Amino acid sequence: MSALKGHYGIKIYDTTLRDGSQGEGISFSVKEKIAITQKLDELGIHFIEGGNPYSNPKDIEYFKAVRKIKLRNAKVCAFGSTRRSNETVKTDPGLKLLLSSGADVVTIVGKSWVLHVRDVLKVTVKKNLDMIASSVEYLKSKGQEVVYDAEHFFNGFRDDPEYAIKTIKAAEEAGADWVVLCDTNGGSLPAWIGEVVEKVGKEIKVPLGIHTHNDSGMAVANSIVAVVSGARQVQGTINGYGERCGNANLCSIIPILKWKMNINSITDKQSRKLVEVSRYVNELANVVPRDEQPFVGDSAFAHKGGMHVDAVRKNARSFEHVEPELIGNERRILVSELSGKANVLLKAEEYHLDLRKKSQETAQIVRKVKELEHQGYQFEAAEASLQLLMKKVLGLHRRFFDLQGFRVSVERKGGRVVSEATIKVEVKGVEEHTAAEGDGPVNALDNALRKALVRFYPSITEMRLTDFKVRVLDAKAGTAAKVRVLIESQDHRDTWRTIGVSENIIEASWQALVDSVEYKLMKDRK
Amino acid sequence: MSALKGHYGIKIYDTTLRDGSQGEGISFSVKEKIAITQKLDELGIHFIEGGNPYSNPKDIEYFKAVRKIKLRNAKVCAFGSTRRSNETVKTDPGLKLLLSSGADVVTIVGKSWVLHVRDVLKVTVKKNLDMIASSVEYLKSKGQEVVYDAEHFFNGFRDDPEYAIKTIKAAEEAGADWVVLCDTNGGSLPAWIGEVVEKVGKEIKVPLGIHTHNDSGMAVANSIVAVVSGARQVQGTINGYGERCGNANLCSIIPILKWKMNINSITDKQSRKLVEVSRYVNELANVVPRDEQPFVGDSAFAHKGGMHVDAVRKNARSFEHVEPELIGNERRILVSELSGKANVLLKAEEYHLDLRKKSQETAQIVRKVKELEHQGYQFEAAEASLQLLMKKVLGLHRRFFDLQGFRVSVERKGGRVVSEATIKVEVKGVEEHTAAEGDGPVNALDNALRKALVRFYPSITEMRLTDFKVRVLDAKAGTAAKVRVLIESQDHRDTWRTIGVSENIIEASWQALVDSVEYKLMKDRK
Repeated sequence: MSALKGHYGIKIYDTTLRDGSQGEGISFSVKEKIAITQKLDELGIHFIEGGNPYSNPKDIEYFKAVRKIKLRNAKVCAFGSTRRSNETVKTDPGLKLLLSSGADVVTIVGKSWVLHVRDVLKVTVKKNLDMIASSVEYLKSKGQEVVYDAEHFFNGFRDDPEYAIKTIKAAEEAGADWVVLCDTNGGSLPAWIGEVVEKVGKEIKVPLGIHTHNDSGMAVANSIVAVVSGARQVQGTINGYGERCGNANLCSIIPILKWKMNINSITDKQSRKLVEVSRYVNELANVVPRDEQPFVGDSAFAHKGGMHVDAVRKNARSFEHVEPELIGNERRILVSELSGKANVLLKAEEYHLDLRKKSQETAQIVRKVKELEHQGYQFEAAEASLQLLMKKVLGLHRRFFDLQGFRVSVERKGGRVVSEATIKVEVKGVEEHTAAEGDGPVNALDNALRKALVRFYPSITEMRLTDFKVRVLDAKAGTAAKVRVLIESQDHRDTWRTIGVSENIIEASWQALVDSVEYKLMKDRK
Repeated sequence: MSALKGHYGIKIYDTTLRDGSQGEGISFSVKEKIAITQKLDELGIHFIEGGNPYSNPKDIEYFKAVRKIKLRNAKVCAFGSTRRSNETVKTDPGLKLLLSSGADVVTIVGKSWVLHVRDVLKVTVKKNLDMIASSVEYLKSKGQEVVYDAEHFFNGFRDDPEYAIKTIKAAEEAGADWVVLCDTNGGSLPAWIGEVVEKVGKEIKVPLGIHTHNDSGMAVANSIVAVVSGARQVQGTINGYGERCGNANLCSIIPILKWKMNINSITDKQSRKLVEVSRYVNELANVVPRDEQPFVGDSAFAHKGGMHVDAVRKNARSFEHVEPELIGNERRILVSELSGKANVLLKAEEYHLDLRKKSQETAQIVRKVKELEHQGYQFEAAEASLQLLMKKVLGLHRRFFDLQGFRVSVERKGGRVVSEATIKVEVKGVEEHTAAEGDGPVNALDNALRKALVRFYPSITEMRLTDFKVRVLDAKAGTAAKVRVLIESQDHRDTWRTIGVSENIIEASWQALVDSVEYKLMKDRK
């Protein structure tokens, strides 16, 4: 591995927009694909596979649109197959669309596994070799940079190594710029990947790439072992999106190469964008982030157990394998039933609340947090609510308004659905009774509350709710289940999160709304 | 690796109940811990680490309770530390609790890394060796089976290999039955793990174990490479629960050992329980299952892309790395915008709807599904709704009732919150107008609908809602966001899932409720 030290030559090939969008529930609009392309370019990705114009007509639009934007680092790749068996390279509609896409690079996939040649393509092994060679040759004759993806290579090599090698030699001799070995069904183990990549490296000269899937939980390990064995391009997706168990996760591979193997495929500055890119792509894909995701997850540097927290305070290196800042992440100390006083004290420090000499209040806060967590509250993701709770216990909380009552109704008549909320609050001795409609009961309640408060606290017009999450806690109770509502709010300066829990979604939302507004007003008073 | 063929000697050590419960948001009651212990025992797990009686008083109860149940395969382990530096083995409260726990095995963790000895324990390297030796010796003198966990071993070995070896030799000489090498901060790469395990194997005779964390996305790969290099015990958790990025995932490790390396740590029959155990533990932990989880995830054998689906039909082996049945999972064909006709035809076949000669209706169904998916519907998880949709397009759907209107209200006055729903439906020419209360607006609506229908369709009393999921689709829109509601229902025979999407959570729930009831009535009519 020492031969790789300081090696800058590993190219990152992102296929989030193509193979990644095969993931369950993942689908991008053209506009979203363009936005992600720009983010990946900022991250320093070398190749961005934008789509398959033949199988997905929407992708033709993408390639049109992407030509209009300027990229600094990345080459855009169009993905397709070698020619169909019943077409020539000139008549094949797929190859035609690849060429007319205007992409910087064309990536074509072909078969390496005799099983697939016979059972899926239903052609002779000889004809398959010709389909590969003629397709690559044709694309090269048009002046394209060509990446050849050898599908199921590691299975093919196990069944018939000689034939598998022949397929990629056909691509090499036809002029392919890259040959990428694919573990398409994700079943290979690292030892096998390493052995095969090394053997192939002795047979062909064209630089090799690796494309793995995570069906054995090994996609990242397999990519890394391939690099150690000689691969010079790594294909994967942001957050490991992809069909079944996903593709190799570039959010792990990039920092491992850079911070553990000293292979600087992207710069230090670009590396600090990794968390941002991961979250951005999650947002656009509308995928719930995996908090436990290595390197970029919200929990990746979160410390909970009392002993660990204590040790991290003493020496961060003692429990962290890399510095979170290097990838744009941060250390988090969690408040939870396993932690106790030490964590609450740390949090208080963060909030500038001096608890050191108030052991009775500290114990009271710990007890209250435990009790609420038992009911389903989770302050780890709702620190604004935690801060309000601490202030209440310490007698530092000021009430901004008193609720007299509210009423929310949803009425459906014919096809029309109307949501309305009425609310009565008392503010500074004045009673305010208002009503508002909304796009649903919680939105109506939100509108009514703001309407009631705005003339007393005009600054609440600055804040807006930017995220709204609902989690059913005891789903087995069906429609009578307890729900947890998390609200994220923003003003021009800050972002904060609040929580509510109840069997009634309206009541849970109400709690989180009130905390959000109170946090904003408290913040402004300072 | 061939030396391991058919090897039965790898022991699986589960720490879901101890290290796994350090995961964010994970917490088990004593009752749940006992239930999981029984499930793990059925799965054939050899060691079950139940808790740490010193750090978590709840765990004392667990050890009391677990003594009363009969386990077939597993030994129960109590976890703790070597003696504190200011205590003797006889006065140390932790060791005392371990011995009085009555567990079959005692696992104690000690320091191998000089950095930790100095900065966290704050004792001399010599004193640390004595703490290890005296603790193990004391526990052995009481007749305990002892597992010694060498914390941060792979970091310690890098900084000072000689001292790291000394710490585990101290445990060995004091009589430890196992020495487990821990990659506590999860930062090691497979090549390093393999090298160290091999070297250590030459230094000590006592059987080695491996305990890894997933901070580099390598926990599974690191466990497997350790086995290849000589480790005879693998520690991990169900679903990879654990602090930060989690522990090594036994739901991947067990099938890899068994089905890819021919190491039969559990029997074939036990292996077929793996999916069940994974889901069971998710349920009790109230953790949203990771569909993309290797081997046991709901998407692990799900096929979406048209080309893949076609190939899987022709030859399953061509896209699947193991047979899903071996681990109790199953193949799924997804209906989605990327798939088109082939998938819809497959689904129709499953529902016994003959679409083969109805190309116009098929195209209409494909169009309708695409349109609804664009709006946020997802039929992958709501097949009952999909089936109703297909029948509607084919003119095979019978309307069981007509909604005239409903009204749902939530009122909060003082501390009290009341939810009420009124509903007007027409059934078989009769108008029914009823009202009901509930534990929240959706529950009230559910109650009112049932009340209105029961005298016409008494069989709806057999069904109950068993799961209720809410997902905010465009969370950025705040409280005006679109929500997707998924409802799971059961009767004595079947389980089915339905969906609704709207900006209004009440309306979305209503759609899913209606589909659920209609599916039940349609099913009963057959």
